[in-house]
Amino acid sequence: MHYVNFSPDGKTRLLGLLEGSAIVSLGDATLEQLLAQGVDLVDWANAQRPAGTQYNLSDVTLLPPLTRPGKIICVGLNYADHTKESPYEQPSYPTLFPRFNTSLIAHDAPMIRPLVSDSLDFEGEMAVVLKRGGRHIPLSKALDCVAGYSVFNDGSVREYQFKAPQWTVGKNFDGTGAFGPSLVTADEVPAGGKGLKLETRLNGKVVQSANTDDMLFDVATLIAVISEAITLEAGDVIVSGTPAGIGWAREPKLIMRAGDVCEVEIEGLGVLRNVVRDEAPQR
Amino acid sequence: MHYVNFSPDGKTRLLGLLEGSAIVSLGDATLEQLLAQGVDLVDWANAQRPAGTQYNLSDVTLLPPLTRPGKIICVGLNYADHTKESPYEQPSYPTLFPRFNTSLIAHDAPMIRPLVSDSLDFEGEMAVVLKRGGRHIPLSKALDCVAGYSVFNDGSVREYQFKAPQWTVGKNFDGTGAFGPSLVTADEVPAGGKGLKLETRLNGKVVQSANTDDMLFDVATLIAVISEAITLEAGDVIVSGTPAGIGWAREPKLIMRAGDVCEVEIEGLGVLRNVVRDEAPQR
Repeated sequence: MHYVNFSPDGKTRLLGLLEGSAIVSLGDATLEQLLAQGVDLVDWANAQRPAGTQYNLSDVTLLPPLTRPGKIICVGLNYADHTKESPYEQPSYPTLFPRFNTSLIAHDAPMIRPLVSDSLDFEGEMAVVLKRGGRHIPLSKALDCVAGYSVFNDGSVREYQFKAPQWTVGKNFDGTGAFGPSLVTADEVPAGGKGLKLETRLNGKVVQSANTDDMLFDVATLIAVISEAITLEAGDVIVSGTPAGIGWAREPKLIMRAGDVCEVEIEGLGVLRNVVRDEAPQR
Repeated sequence: MHYVNFSPDGKTRLLGLLEGSAIVSLGDATLEQLLAQGVDLVDWANAQRPAGTQYNLSDVTLLPPLTRPGKIICVGLNYADHTKESPYEQPSYPTLFPRFNTSLIAHDAPMIRPLVSDSLDFEGEMAVVLKRGGRHIPLSKALDCVAGYSVFNDGSVREYQFKAPQWTVGKNFDGTGAFGPSLVTADEVPAGGKGLKLETRLNGKVVQSANTDDMLFDVATLIAVISEAITLEAGDVIVSGTPAGIGWAREPKLIMRAGDVCEVEIEGLGVLRNVVRDEAPQR
């Protein structure tokens, strides 16, 4: 099932199932609420679906599948070919950094190039949404914690990412964290989101092409390793890293400009599409 | 006013005012709720106080003043003498990293040394809680956003902090982010929390001694600069950095052990005291 969070009228917000070019509404619960309550997303949708109203995808505005997750933990340097194009040595432990909720945008929302920098770059990634958390989660039980998967474009303002030793600010500009279009329940893809083709396209040209199998720390390992330190919770999101091909590592640098169309596609999880727009000047 | 979040019985949770060794209850609202609603904390407490019940501080359990802030943005390398003892050059831009809510503990709660590492270190810091947010907040209006100040001990598992280029994991072990004892409303201290003596003591011995005036990026500057990139929100917390004296930079290294008592005191904001305890072994 492909859960979407959407607004039919720009005011109200509903949860729904994306079925081709149609959406069937499931009421006004949020995925944050359902996951915190331990609801089984497949059973719940089957129960709610008969009472749902049908919308055309083209008539509604999508929102990120979750807008206020408890935490969003991003993983850097998780594809060897991307580490090679970066200024870093490959660490033997996952490189973790945060996304704050305030940076999230949906499928089809503009990705914002801030006026303070010209250096907005793309990073296509697979996102993992948890339905269960805990501490010291054994590797063998890690995938039992996964509610589903989604697509993420970890839009990065490179100049700011490297102004200080920590990347936080460059990864958290408003309007740069694209998440969606939907949350695909875990039953629809191979365990751990393994073996999925990942492709990023800028104005139709392929700029990143990889397979989720190429991750150095796979989804189960990330959950187990992070939970050695940090209690994970239902509704937390892990954004699992980007492969080679980023614009900042190219010669000359490939930087996104207003009007550019960036698409991240992951097999079985859909296409996340955003058009770059310049930040509006301050009044 | 010194707002405390507390449990009188280990089950229910109340907000209250700390007055010496007494607490006057103010009902079951949370600071997160009040700040999101734009409530003036001084006016509101004055209105609620007459109906309050009095407790002895020694009879209750304190909780962190906020347990689920929208974001906790920590600032690294914000005291020149601390940067000198670190492996880093002084950046000309604030070094930002996250604390996740799952790592927070209260005054008097045990600070937990994880079994996977012996390297738990202290970092005394001033925390700033926002009552108003926004984007592109001008420096001249930045302090209007501050609800109040608190004390933070940014307990750091050093080995994990340096396993990868980003510090996130070493700064987010469960039970390491001590926050409290109270939220002191901004009217009680100099604007921007300026000129306050900050001292960290380990088993009674002074290990950090500084003044909040020594910050390279002061509170107003942090709010203005962070909001150039990131929308700040009411209830967000900025943890403003630690001065020199950390245990990891000493020769030999000074590492906290089970039974150690770590106190961080900031003039006018109180003493945050935590006893180190080893993580319980997994069953």
